Amino acid sequence: MTLTIYAEDLRKGAAHQLGSHTVTEAELVEFAAQWDPQGFHIDRSVADAGQFGGLIASGIHTLAIYQRLSVVGIFDDWAVIAGRELRSVRFLRPVRPGDALTGTVVIEDIVFDDRARALVTTSAELVDGAGDRVLSLLMDAYVHARPST
Amino acid sequence: MTLTIYAEDLRKGAAHQLGSHTVTEAELVEFAAQWDPQGFHIDRSVADAGQFGGLIASGIHTLAIYQRLSVVGIFDDWAVIAGRELRSVRFLRPVRPGDALTGTVVIEDIVFDDRARALVTTSAELVDGAGDRVLSLLMDAYVHARPST
Repeated sequence: MTLTIYAEDLRKGAAHQLGSHTVTEAELVEFAAQWDPQGFHIDRSVADAGQFGGLIASGIHTLAIYQRLSVVGIFDDWAVIAGRELRSVRFLRPVRPGDALTGTVVIEDIVFDDRARALVTTSAELVDGAGDRVLSLLMDAYVHARPST
Repeated sequence: MTLTIYAEDLRKGAAHQLGSHTVTEAELVEFAAQWDPQGFHIDRSVADAGQFGGLIASGIHTLAIYQRLSVVGIFDDWAVIAGRELRSVRFLRPVRPGDALTGTVVIEDIVFDDRARALVTTSAELVDGAGDRVLSLLMDAYVHARPST
């Protein structure tokens, strides 16, 4: 059994290492066909002839991979209420089929309000197999304060 | 045949109405199970007992719906190179099963650089069936300048 982590348990500056997710061409094309059907994401011949010389992942797909890694690795243990805002979501380099993405999350700030919760700001980045950053972002999310007993 | 829209064809202040996407419970749970597996997104009993009194969509899912509507309705006709940054992605209200989302995109700025392209800033919002805003964001993307002939 995992103990729930409340806002009081968080420490500003704490860093968490994420797991890894490898992007397959099938996943890349399937995601984009449903949510971001631009030629350079879904059509290999268009992509090969284009700016990037091959298929690149939708930025929303890259962001979804970040979300999965961060929820499975970190946030699933926290008493998260909901996300409020994503800020400065930067798509720094193309993500391509075969890239294995991993990264880190750092707790930047914890601000309690009068509704038994805190607004928690985290910064995060994903890197590819070469260690180059492909995504960086800031997220603000509400986390429950520890219930009084 | 659709004419490709280059950066020179864009007009600051132009507003575009998006189509509509209805969020089903099956889609909501399927998306979150893959990309954002938190209880309030994927487990109806957890969600019913929680803060929102029922399942709510992952913010990344809401953002993916925005991306689909904007690509199909607008950006697929533009000579988009790639997105660079999402700024101030605000999750303003919960999105629930059955919500029909639509919205608008406004061209906020067009800045040419010396690489035959412009960085185009758009603002966007999605509203639910009641007309309440559920998502707002700013996006910066590179768009090709018209090729010289």
